[in-house]
Amino acid sequence: MTTSWVPGADASGFGADNLPYGVFSRRGADPRVGVRIGGHVLDLAGLLGDREFFAASLNPFMARGSTTWRATRAKVSGMLVGEGSRAEAEPHLVPLDEVVLLPPFEVADYVDFYCSLEHASNVGRMFRPDEEPLKPNWRHLPVGYHGRAGSVVPSGTDIVRPAGQRGTVDGPVFGPSTRLDIEAEIGFVVGTRTSPGRTVPVADFAEHVFGVVLVNDWSARDIQAWEYAPLGPFLGKSFATSVSQWVVPLDALGAARFAGREQEPEPFAYLRRVADWGLDIALEVRLNGEVVSRPPFAAMYWTGDQMLAHLTSNGAPLRTGDLYASGTVSGGRPDQRGSLLELTWGGTEPLRLGDGSARTFLQDGDTVSVTATAPGMAGGTIDLGEVVGTVLPAV
Amino acid sequence: MTTSWVPGADASGFGADNLPYGVFSRRGADPRVGVRIGGHVLDLAGLLGDREFFAASLNPFMARGSTTWRATRAKVSGMLVGEGSRAEAEPHLVPLDEVVLLPPFEVADYVDFYCSLEHASNVGRMFRPDEEPLKPNWRHLPVGYHGRAGSVVPSGTDIVRPAGQRGTVDGPVFGPSTRLDIEAEIGFVVGTRTSPGRTVPVADFAEHVFGVVLVNDWSARDIQAWEYAPLGPFLGKSFATSVSQWVVPLDALGAARFAGREQEPEPFAYLRRVADWGLDIALEVRLNGEVVSRPPFAAMYWTGDQMLAHLTSNGAPLRTGDLYASGTVSGGRPDQRGSLLELTWGGTEPLRLGDGSARTFLQDGDTVSVTATAPGMAGGTIDLGEVVGTVLPAV
Repeated sequence: MTTSWVPGADASGFGADNLPYGVFSRRGADPRVGVRIGGHVLDLAGLLGDREFFAASLNPFMARGSTTWRATRAKVSGMLVGEGSRAEAEPHLVPLDEVVLLPPFEVADYVDFYCSLEHASNVGRMFRPDEEPLKPNWRHLPVGYHGRAGSVVPSGTDIVRPAGQRGTVDGPVFGPSTRLDIEAEIGFVVGTRTSPGRTVPVADFAEHVFGVVLVNDWSARDIQAWEYAPLGPFLGKSFATSVSQWVVPLDALGAARFAGREQEPEPFAYLRRVADWGLDIALEVRLNGEVVSRPPFAAMYWTGDQMLAHLTSNGAPLRTGDLYASGTVSGGRPDQRGSLLELTWGGTEPLRLGDGSARTFLQDGDTVSVTATAPGMAGGTIDLGEVVGTVLPAV
Repeated sequence: MTTSWVPGADASGFGADNLPYGVFSRRGADPRVGVRIGGHVLDLAGLLGDREFFAASLNPFMARGSTTWRATRAKVSGMLVGEGSRAEAEPHLVPLDEVVLLPPFEVADYVDFYCSLEHASNVGRMFRPDEEPLKPNWRHLPVGYHGRAGSVVPSGTDIVRPAGQRGTVDGPVFGPSTRLDIEAEIGFVVGTRTSPGRTVPVADFAEHVFGVVLVNDWSARDIQAWEYAPLGPFLGKSFATSVSQWVVPLDALGAARFAGREQEPEPFAYLRRVADWGLDIALEVRLNGEVVSRPPFAAMYWTGDQMLAHLTSNGAPLRTGDLYASGTVSGGRPDQRGSLLELTWGGTEPLRLGDGSARTFLQDGDTVSVTATAPGMAGGTIDLGEVVGTVLPAV
């Protein structure tokens, strides 16, 4: 593990090998871009002075492209590691409890994939019990759809229980969702745009994707089940999607990389992997503080580079701030499932919580948190932060 | 018909009862907001001086809200009708051939509905021949999904034929789409934002929706058919969606309003109409200049106010620049269908064109144009402009 002179940083999961980016404000001051180190944020605007750090979002910096990302990371890392830069950098460290964190980036388009074999199989079994769990296309392409970018909210935002139509044996009824759920996911944040008609080969993944966030794609299963045929999920998802406050650069995930899960049949040429973009990220899902699942991102069938190549294979342009999420991360074991739908098998097997209560879907007042860690570049562990939200009653 | 002193305006379809908004630039100058009158654009920045007209999009003006929209329309209309303002306004008229039109608004989220009973029934019969054409939910809610905002392009943009996976009897293959299609639609442009958790009742439609545009939602039917289960259309749609350059304010459509098509069963309370928002807009679809269809927007089952109430019924927030389109407009007669999929019944009944050629789906080089007219406020007809695009070969 690379050690830093910042007190407490090395053991925090936010040491010199992590250095995620975020946007912060010091009581009433204009927002600025910073890097998290231990319990502090390093004020990049103050330290480096570049215009793109005096900004309310990471978008201007992300738009600069991967050469700038890498040069900045090298420079910042060097200053936080070498004692020689301490005098210069230390005045720009701000304790986290003196700042307000702001949404880290402006979301352009939001796409949600469906890349866990176990999740897709589980959902298929529950939603379409009379069919093969996986549709015929599933092993040939990363299935995905567009979500609502305007509903993406930062971690900590309360989530109002949505109302909507749901089907019953007597026909549809309208009211607050009774099957409010979570989806623990990893989201990829696009930095570098493309022109319409251009495709992005798998090999160019790291030239376009700036980093990753944790995502909780809140889902009203009853609304979704009634509305989704034939055009897919809409209001069952569009009320809120929460993302973590710190964007972890791809470059911080080098030690987490591996070949990726084996794929059968071999994908089409445009989806064939040319580099290791499987990511060994360990997620944890907490319900009111209690761990209820440990989804392994390493189990995902499709990897981030494949998702991006597919997303652009028809020439759809990328914009700075595009967010695409993996879909629910579920592993093969029951305690590795990333949604309550799967953890309670459609509500038929309630979760027993430590306080003696049981849950099928979320109750008002429930707080859900998703956290994650990954191996760090020089040993140790890096922390991907947290995405948390509390359910408020329907209006 | 209200008459204007602007030469040629009264007979143009862009007279004083229309006054659509757009964004233009005079050779190299900064973009400005203008209103179309006859063969001219009235430079609102120059004439009125408000800051929101010195802008590259209508978004700042639309964000001001409906009181400002109405006051501005009244003022502009008065100046273009009354001879007393002629001396003041005339210097700010710019001939259309001296300007470049720019994309009229910055798209926040893009939603596409599926509100034509005939279109949904036709597609159901073709895509799912063994089932009821309409899914059980269809008459209970306006089915919709999110599309790709970053792929929305202004009229006149060439459309590159997308490549993608399509199913065959021997399994999927990858290559340029062989079933490239159009969808003639009306799009609603949102001006006034809402906060997360707030719903917009049908009665508030005209407080949030600024106006309408023509939409061609280009569709690769082969890609769509293979990918769409279970999460809906994705790459079959996300390569391009074209919109017209002039946003016609809702206030220009007063004479086009009627109760809307009868609905059975009666919708849920939150979808029940309280005002006449059926719109008698007559569309025309041209393929290489020849009219191939005349879809009647009056035939739509769900109206714009219902779409908006549904879209926000789960508390999803609106942003300035949100665009939601009606879905393909198809009437009951074969020559009223708004897609080639329906006009050629899935490619089985080719269209005969005047030049002796036949079409099932689009060929490279084909130009598709959608135009529309509606009754004007004081007699006469208003023109909704045009959305046009030409197909370029796959890369």
